[in-house]
Amino acid sequence: MGKILIKDVEILSMKDEKREIVVGDILIEDQYIKDIGKLNYDSSQVDIINGKNCLALPGLVNCHTHVAMTLLRGYADDMELMPWLKEKIWPAEEKLTGEHVYWGSMLAALEMIKSGTTTFADMYFFMDEVARAVEDSGMRAVLSRGMTGFSDKAYKTMEESKTFISTWQGKANGRISCMLGPHAPYTCPPDYLEKVVELAKELQVGLHIHLAETKSEFNDIRKQYGKTPIRHVYDLGLFEVPVLAAHCVHLTEDDLDILQQVKVGIAHNPTSNMKLASGMAPIPHILERNIVLGIGTDGASSNNNLNMLEELHLAALLHKVSWGDPTVLPADRVLEMGTLGGAKVLNLEKEIGSIEIGKKADIILIDLDKPHLYPRHDLIANIIYSAQGSDVKTSIIDGQVIMKDYEVKGLDEEKIKYEANRLAHTLVS
Amino acid sequence: MGKILIKDVEILSMKDEKREIVVGDILIEDQYIKDIGKLNYDSSQVDIINGKNCLALPGLVNCHTHVAMTLLRGYADDMELMPWLKEKIWPAEEKLTGEHVYWGSMLAALEMIKSGTTTFADMYFFMDEVARAVEDSGMRAVLSRGMTGFSDKAYKTMEESKTFISTWQGKANGRISCMLGPHAPYTCPPDYLEKVVELAKELQVGLHIHLAETKSEFNDIRKQYGKTPIRHVYDLGLFEVPVLAAHCVHLTEDDLDILQQVKVGIAHNPTSNMKLASGMAPIPHILERNIVLGIGTDGASSNNNLNMLEELHLAALLHKVSWGDPTVLPADRVLEMGTLGGAKVLNLEKEIGSIEIGKKADIILIDLDKPHLYPRHDLIANIIYSAQGSDVKTSIIDGQVIMKDYEVKGLDEEKIKYEANRLAHTLVS
Repeated sequence: MGKILIKDVEILSMKDEKREIVVGDILIEDQYIKDIGKLNYDSSQVDIINGKNCLALPGLVNCHTHVAMTLLRGYADDMELMPWLKEKIWPAEEKLTGEHVYWGSMLAALEMIKSGTTTFADMYFFMDEVARAVEDSGMRAVLSRGMTGFSDKAYKTMEESKTFISTWQGKANGRISCMLGPHAPYTCPPDYLEKVVELAKELQVGLHIHLAETKSEFNDIRKQYGKTPIRHVYDLGLFEVPVLAAHCVHLTEDDLDILQQVKVGIAHNPTSNMKLASGMAPIPHILERNIVLGIGTDGASSNNNLNMLEELHLAALLHKVSWGDPTVLPADRVLEMGTLGGAKVLNLEKEIGSIEIGKKADIILIDLDKPHLYPRHDLIANIIYSAQGSDVKTSIIDGQVIMKDYEVKGLDEEKIKYEANRLAHTLVS
Repeated sequence: MGKILIKDVEILSMKDEKREIVVGDILIEDQYIKDIGKLNYDSSQVDIINGKNCLALPGLVNCHTHVAMTLLRGYADDMELMPWLKEKIWPAEEKLTGEHVYWGSMLAALEMIKSGTTTFADMYFFMDEVARAVEDSGMRAVLSRGMTGFSDKAYKTMEESKTFISTWQGKANGRISCMLGPHAPYTCPPDYLEKVVELAKELQVGLHIHLAETKSEFNDIRKQYGKTPIRHVYDLGLFEVPVLAAHCVHLTEDDLDILQQVKVGIAHNPTSNMKLASGMAPIPHILERNIVLGIGTDGASSNNNLNMLEELHLAALLHKVSWGDPTVLPADRVLEMGTLGGAKVLNLEKEIGSIEIGKKADIILIDLDKPHLYPRHDLIANIIYSAQGSDVKTSIIDGQVIMKDYEVKGLDEEKIKYEANRLAHTLVS
């Protein structure tokens, strides 16, 4: 691999709370950010990317998704949760093959790259195919094979998870890392969850789980176990390993106390929580307690997109109105959730999440030369409140230029769209 | 003017509740839609626009905005309402000149054209300059000079409004229509509002007013007059003329009864209501009562963009979670609010709001060939939940091609961005 110089770019490193924006150059060598400042290289030494009129940001981190569900985008909307799942989503998922999951994941990768996401955390089935899509697309990902503990497949999926992790952990030049993916407390009984925790300790991996997503989950778990979902999994020892907890919408004070004390990162999914009417997560309380917090899109069937800039925008807006306070979740705090915060949720903050010398080069350039990004009173506010996913012009992941000047490199976009669309229709016919 | 044929396009006319999407051609002659169907014309007879892989929709209608406030985009965010107004917005507005308003409006026009808005309803100052920007940009607009009744300028602004209306009503080939713009019940005392109603009757125009936007307005009006804002203005005779009521966030059952009986169109502004923490309007109740309803962005200082697709998306999401019901505001109903519903709010439904023979040709083409718009299970869900403003490829307003293949015709984009940015900084220094 060669050297890349991003020249004359506005740099928002996100490395500290000053949120200073400096104009300068970024030198990338192999996977890494090597230097930042006014640098002197010419085109015989480095590949130069003109960064004028662009803002360089750490790549966005999508902390919770099911990428292959792009195939079900727009298939069933505006429905009650249980009929939506039982009549629509689950029957369609029954028909999934590895081929579906590969092309659905490639479609997702295209969408994510074009809207500034460089890393995503995924939980689904046929995860070898998702891993292949990560390899082929050049993205970075934290992957978990979804596990449920009730069916006869409960222990089979545990074995599959083990194989998956031994196959893919650290692969794709280190761009793939793995977690175990117990689906949720209402789909994984206590003894099963305990076994998953044991396995996580043995494999030295974290867990990716849905927690306290809906009011009915909250009520059902309390009825069944006499505890909130958070207290329930805490008592089972879940937090003895690092946990990526998706949703956390319905939390008590006691739950917040627990989450504050353990090694957990929360993936907040505002669009999905709004669209499915799951509820409004108490994000201001989570922030007050300095609990690690990132943002996710959830799957494209409950969103229906994977556009992280939109997700950040929604997070900034939703909690202002739900809290009745326009000062909560200011723009710079939300941007942190989409970058360094997300990296922390995935336990990748030593590698990614900010533009710093020595970190891996996951960098996006946002094209500031759009009518909706003028005037330039406040670039951070412009990014959170005004930008569109399509303003992302260039994306570098792991030191590789994945998209340049809006063009995704090395992927056959027409084929991906064609195959994904074709296969999607086989799920619902 | 010549003839235009949009060929081989998916057409969603919005003319009735069937929401049928048919593939065909649209013939435009002068200002009007002349024919729809499988049409036989060749390029010697008509200018052909290739509509393949595009969805033709009626142009989006932004029912409430203050377009020149683009100049204050990102200037002051994440603040409490009163300090935001008193310390930031009002002092900056004190410095406004006609030049500011013209270039701010041109920047807004660029942004709106590029994101699919063809018509907007504006209330602000220096409205001659907004009207000039409408003329120059080719957009359609309903314009009101904002009026407040407390200052010594109260009657002067009434005279100015009169002059403005006599100058601009029906101008720009009929693209401009006018209303009177009494700002709000808390800035216009009763006797002043009564005089505005008299003037509206005399001039045969409607009123554009902010109503029941915040809880404090609701409480203050009730304290002062013993009535809700809606009942208060109803008793003053406001609804004896057609009213465009922006916001309507805080409504009682009695208010809803009034609104159901009178000639009113509500402009719902979800982003602004969320960002300023004004509250969540009872949109499902408004829809149950079949009150005319459209969507607006409000000004770019409380949004911070003029992207109507984003606004529709937010409306669809917000009320699901606020109502705890994922079936409220389904995608097709929200799209209606952004097109024909908006046209009704502006009393323009005989001219625009749907793709029908005899209506004026305000049509946008959405480029469906984007990763985030595949697969094609449901185009309407894809538009509301997945599309970005930047997916709008072509825009025709009043039979004129204003943007083709993403390129805005006849406007000097660089100059607009430069002037708007330059002038914006003179407001805040």
